[in-house]
Order: sequence, then C-alpha cells, then structure tokens
Amino acid sequence: MTVLRIEQAEELARRALAAAGASEAMARSTARALVAAEAEGLGSHGLSRVPQYASFLRNGRADGDAVPAIVADRAACALVDARDGLAFPACELAVATAIAKARDAGVAFVAVTNSHHFGVAAHHLEEVAAAGMVGLALGNSPAAMPVPGGRRALLGTNPIAAAFPRPGADPLVIDLSLSEVARGKVMLAAREKRAIPPGWALDAQGEPTTDAQAALAGSMLPFGSGAGGVKGGMLALIVELLVTTLTGARFGAEADSFFVDAGNRPRIGQAFLAIDPRALAGRGVYDERIEALVAAMLDEPGVRLPGARRRAIGVRAGSAGIEIGDALLAQLEALAKGG
Amino acid sequence: MTVLRIEQAEELARRALAAAGASEAMARSTARALVAAEAEGLGSHGLSRVPQYASFLRNGRADGDAVPAIVADRAACALVDARDGLAFPACELAVATAIAKARDAGVAFVAVTNSHHFGVAAHHLEEVAAAGMVGLALGNSPAAMPVPGGRRALLGTNPIAAAFPRPGADPLVIDLSLSEVARGKVMLAAREKRAIPPGWALDAQGEPTTDAQAALAGSMLPFGSGAGGVKGGMLALIVELLVTTLTGARFGAEADSFFVDAGNRPRIGQAFLAIDPRALAGRGVYDERIEALVAAMLDEPGVRLPGARRRAIGVRAGSAGIEIGDALLAQLEALAKGG
Repeated sequence: MTVLRIEQAEELARRALAAAGASEAMARSTARALVAAEAEGLGSHGLSRVPQYASFLRNGRADGDAVPAIVADRAACALVDARDGLAFPACELAVATAIAKARDAGVAFVAVTNSHHFGVAAHHLEEVAAAGMVGLALGNSPAAMPVPGGRRALLGTNPIAAAFPRPGADPLVIDLSLSEVARGKVMLAAREKRAIPPGWALDAQGEPTTDAQAALAGSMLPFGSGAGGVKGGMLALIVELLVTTLTGARFGAEADSFFVDAGNRPRIGQAFLAIDPRALAGRGVYDERIEALVAAMLDEPGVRLPGARRRAIGVRAGSAGIEIGDALLAQLEALAKGG
Repeated sequence: MTVLRIEQAEELARRALAAAGASEAMARSTARALVAAEAEGLGSHGLSRVPQYASFLRNGRADGDAVPAIVADRAACALVDARDGLAFPACELAVATAIAKARDAGVAFVAVTNSHHFGVAAHHLEEVAAAGMVGLALGNSPAAMPVPGGRRALLGTNPIAAAFPRPGADPLVIDLSLSEVARGKVMLAAREKRAIPPGWALDAQGEPTTDAQAALAGSMLPFGSGAGGVKGGMLALIVELLVTTLTGARFGAEADSFFVDAGNRPRIGQAFLAIDPRALAGRGVYDERIEALVAAMLDEPGVRLPGARRRAIGVRAGSAGIEIGDALLAQLEALAKGG
C-alpha cells in the first residue's frame, strides 16, 4: 500500500491516459475526475478505471483525439457531441454551457451525445452548485436492467444526481443509480459462494434468482422491485428516454459493457439541468427554505445530510493523501511509461 | 349506480364547486381535471375529491376567488403564484407558459407556489406532449414519509410524471408517487384487520410495522425501503427541495393533511419542465429513438407501454360514460344545489 498526494495521483493517471492516446485536455480532465472519486472513497469509479479507460483508448472504444463540440444551441438548451471521446471533457463543456445559459435564461438543459462512462454523476454538479444554482445530472449506461414486466436487460442503471447549494455550507448532494444494488455486490457474493437477497437480480431466463452465479448471467433489478414494484424501472425508463431521444445517443441495450475489452463505442448520453434560484422565488426565499428543511432533518438523530460523508472522506484525502494498492500502482506506473 | 356522460359529470362537478365558492374558471378547470381522472379509473383522484375540495372552499383551506399570476419571469422559467386557490388554474397557466417559453428557448421550467392538491400529475403533461414536447411534472404533498434515517414524516409522497410524445401514436406517459404504496391500501388493510407487508410503513414511534392500524398512526415508507434502501427517500427529497426552495412553497411537513377538514392552506409546490426535441437532436432523431425503444419493449411479451392502460379506460369512458355510486351522486347533487 502506498499513499499518494492528490496531485501525484492525478499526475500518474494523466500520464497513463496520455500514454494510451488521450489528448492532453482529455487526459487532464479524466485524471482529475477519477482521482476525485477515489479521494471520496468511491473506488469503483476511481483509479481502478484508469487501466479500463486506457484499454478503451488503445482498442478504439474511445477516441483520444476527440474534441467535444456544441452541435445544437438555443437560449436555454444545447447539445454537446462528445465525438466518441472519454466523457469528461464533453461533460465539462456541457456543465459550463448550462451554467452560462441559466445565468441569462434562468434555467438551462444541456445534453451530451456519443458519450462514454461519465463517472460519479454528482461530481459534474459541483460547478453548478458553486455558481449558486440547483443542478440535476442524468445518464444512461450499458444495459443492466429489464423494463417493468420484461425479462432481459434493456435499461442502464441510469444514475440521477442532484446538488442544492446552501448559504455558508456545503451543498446537499444526492447521487444514486436506479438498480437495487451495484453489480459489484453480486460479483462479490458469487466469489464467496453466498446467496443474494430476492429483489436484486434475474437469471438468464428472466426469472427472479437468489443464486449469485445465475444472477451474473442474467440482469440486475431496478431498486424497489422486490415485491413486484415497478417504480424503479419506470424511473430508469424516464432517464433512458431523456438522455437518448433528445440527444440521439445509444440506448443501454445498444452499448457494450464497459467490462469487456472488445466492444463498441458506447455512444451513451447524459443530461444536465441548471436552475438559478434568483430567476424564480429569489435567493432569500431559497436560502430560508433549504435551511428550514436541513434543520428539520438534523432534528432527527438518525438523519445524515446527503453528500456529507463522501465530502468528509474527500477532505481527509486532501490532507492525508490516497492509499493505493501495490498491484494497481504498478499497473498505473507501467501504463504511464507507455507499457 | 348511475352512468353519467363525461359532460354530465363535468357539469355536476362544476356546479358543486361553484356552489362552494369556486370562481367560474376554477370550477370549470377543476371539474374537468377530476372527471378526467375518474374516467381513467383513478377514482381516488376523481369525483370523490369534489366534496373534499368543496369543503376546502367552504372552510377557507382554499380561496375560490384566487386568480393565479406569474410573479417571476425569465426566458426559460417562470414562477406562478396560485394564491391559495385550487391548483388546476395555476397549473394550466404554468404548463401553457412552459410550452410557449420552450418553443422559443428550447426548454422551460415553470413552477407553482402557494398551490394545492394537483390531482393526477401526468394529466398536466397532456398539452406538453400535444405540442410535440417532452414533459416532466413534480409536486410535493402533505408530509407522509420520513427522510432516510428518520422516524417521522417530513416529505410528501411527491409524484413524478413524464410524457414523451410518439409519432402517430399516443405518448408514453409515466406517473408514480414515491411511496411504496398509497395510504389507501393501508386504510383498506386496517378496515379488514389484515397485516401489511414489511416495507410499507412505520408506526408512530418510527419503527417498521406490519400492523395496519399502527401504520395509520405512523408514516408511509418511500418505495424500495423494504430492506433498508434509501433511494426512494432520496428521490422524494430531491422533489421536495425542487418544488419548495425554488418557489417558496411549503414543505409537506408544514401542510396539513388533505383528509382533515380543519387544516391550513397547504401552499405546496409544483414544477413542470418542457423540452422541445427540435431544439436538441431534432424531431427525426427523436422519433427514431423513441420508436426503437418502444419496439424493443414490445418485443418482450410481458411488457406494456406505460400509460396505455389508463388511456384505454379513458377512451371507453368517453363513449360508455362514467359509473358513479348512488351515495356520491346524491352528495354531488346536494352540493350542486348549494347544500
């Protein structure tokens, strides 16, 4: 185990991505995003993604030279084409565009097409909250879940994130994917030969299963599907439609898994909404309302403000650094040397 | 049991609301909305609400003379003040404003404050879909559910609805509240002295319960809370914040139940988002994408298109009329006579 400072980790990730063919701008913004996730304890979206992204760049699943561009532009919306690059430069352009447009129009919706894995959805909203605005982020992902009533995976796990700035305090940040659990939990159970609870997954025939191995060959379930509930799947359908029909991006069912080496360019979609409170009831009302709800939440002993735990871990990593396992470190160093 | 034609039912509801003090415009738009719900088989949001709304108008929980007004206005957003009237005239103004603004700006977000029960969330999106736009509707409601980790009701059941127009076919319409089940199901179980499944409700002490009577004294749970999941509650928190902080509307915990006679003016909030596909990837891309997903859904035998069942019931009611029970009919007729 080695401890790296944030800047060291970013530099290592940046070099590894650049050596795999990412442009300077793409390598820099992707490295920053992955290290930010790692620093907040979100290892599945952190440095472990560097070798994966590097192989996408090497095998043509992502174009390292892609320069994202605005391809449709109106007063309150825009469409960014990520042009098959890694997602982060395109998402940065989308978010900056949304903030600028919302400043004028009050609200803006900026979507991204021909995109890639966009990491931690909520991270894209930090700039929105820093601009004093409310932000929403949505994305689809390679198919992992059926639509309600279906037996095979049609929808991604389709994250929804929201950020609400607070006066003189960190924003409230909510970030969730719409599956009951992440696939990683099923993989862990399969390795340990444990059963999984009902409501997590279907087998390859589309039947509910508690066999982790059978679940890996089948599909994940939307959250709340346990007793036959359809609401999680309906929300995943809303997200899938929003980020594809309006953008031309691929459905999850058309994008190959991120966890196979030889696959297509995923060309999935994302969308960001920025809303300026000053354009509606005003900053004073906004501040009063959010602080009143925060106070009511904190009045209950068991309630934690969403986003606070991740942030605390991130702050600690900012001073103490990030622990990285020897195998991953060796892999990143080899990649950075062009290996 | 009596069968009324749609126009007869609307006329009866309109007269009952007008006799209770609703302005002509408020009575007309509210009657139309309640009958539309009844016609689609959504009885809990249908004619049974007429006596409830009439009592709100009589006891001052709603102002029958309220005229909604736009109180904040930007290129892509607006705030409508319902001024403590019944919600429907304000929501109609909000939706019409959103459509007009989205035509120019591509996207518009119009919210409503000082509002009331807004009925079936998805119904407000019919005009959005008819204009060829994608619509989202959100609202809060009197507190019924705890925030994740909490023991007492802070959040409404907070519906989310979406409508996606289709070329040459009815729109896809998704409409869900964020509780595991409607409170009515617990009331029914309590009457029949049946237990309720775990994951539906908490008792008055904030402990999980399967006792329907104890649940009625406690709170409902967000969907997917069964095994300790927090995602439904986090989504309800997003909706609660969106429709209150940006509008100045009351939180669910500040609004008295709709099912008590003597309560405050609820002053809850709603929000509508309209997105014009022509302003993003364009109509041709939109049509191709939505039809491709619809085809993939219909390729699975168990999958029904969302909204189709309600619509079929509504079409049948359009020709066959609406069945209304004798007690409710007598009550509405008495109300219409000013009784």
